[in-house]
Amino acid sequence: MVELLSATERQDALQNLPGWSEISDRAAIGRSFVFKDFSEAFGFMTRVALAAEKADHHPDWRNVYKTVDVVLTTHDAGGVTARDIALAKAIDAIARPFRAA
Amino acid sequence: MVELLSATERQDALQNLPGWSEISDRAAIGRSFVFKDFSEAFGFMTRVALAAEKADHHPDWRNVYKTVDVVLTTHDAGGVTARDIALAKAIDAIARPFRAA
Repeated sequence: MVELLSATERQDALQNLPGWSEISDRAAIGRSFVFKDFSEAFGFMTRVALAAEKADHHPDWRNVYKTVDVVLTTHDAGGVTARDIALAKAIDAIARPFRAA
Repeated sequence: MVELLSATERQDALQNLPGWSEISDRAAIGRSFVFKDFSEAFGFMTRVALAAEKADHHPDWRNVYKTVDVVLTTHDAGGVTARDIALAKAIDAIARPFRAA
């Protein structure tokens, strides 16, 4: 089982994840993404879905038209672990080309 | 602009949409779907995304692993319209083969 990050480790990790913040009442981290339209938002979601499935670690996420709110936590561990940080980085990398367009 | 359904029209429509219910504080209708796993849930979402884009009417939805919570409302009209009922029917049709498996 993957271990919970300490508060310091979490803060350090978030320093390198601009846009992500702690959702303290859910022991999670989250970020909102805004795209051009639904097609772009769902294109992003599709790539994230493939990455999540491959990592066997899945987001809690909500989509309304061009916005996607992503929340990451490791249920088995009851909070934020290295798996969430890794998925956050992968999600940012997927978002980057969309947002650069 | 598409017109809001009356309370009676809404109730009549929901009679034919088992599993869907009114979300009164959001002037919307909603349904939760539970699939076998994430792959099945996201497969469903992908087909719904295509149907939504084609209809130019999009859900407000949340996915956590194998569950998908769908909320439908017509923002321009400020509540539930025939467009939501049509999309709810399309979503049910997409869910059916998944859930029959």
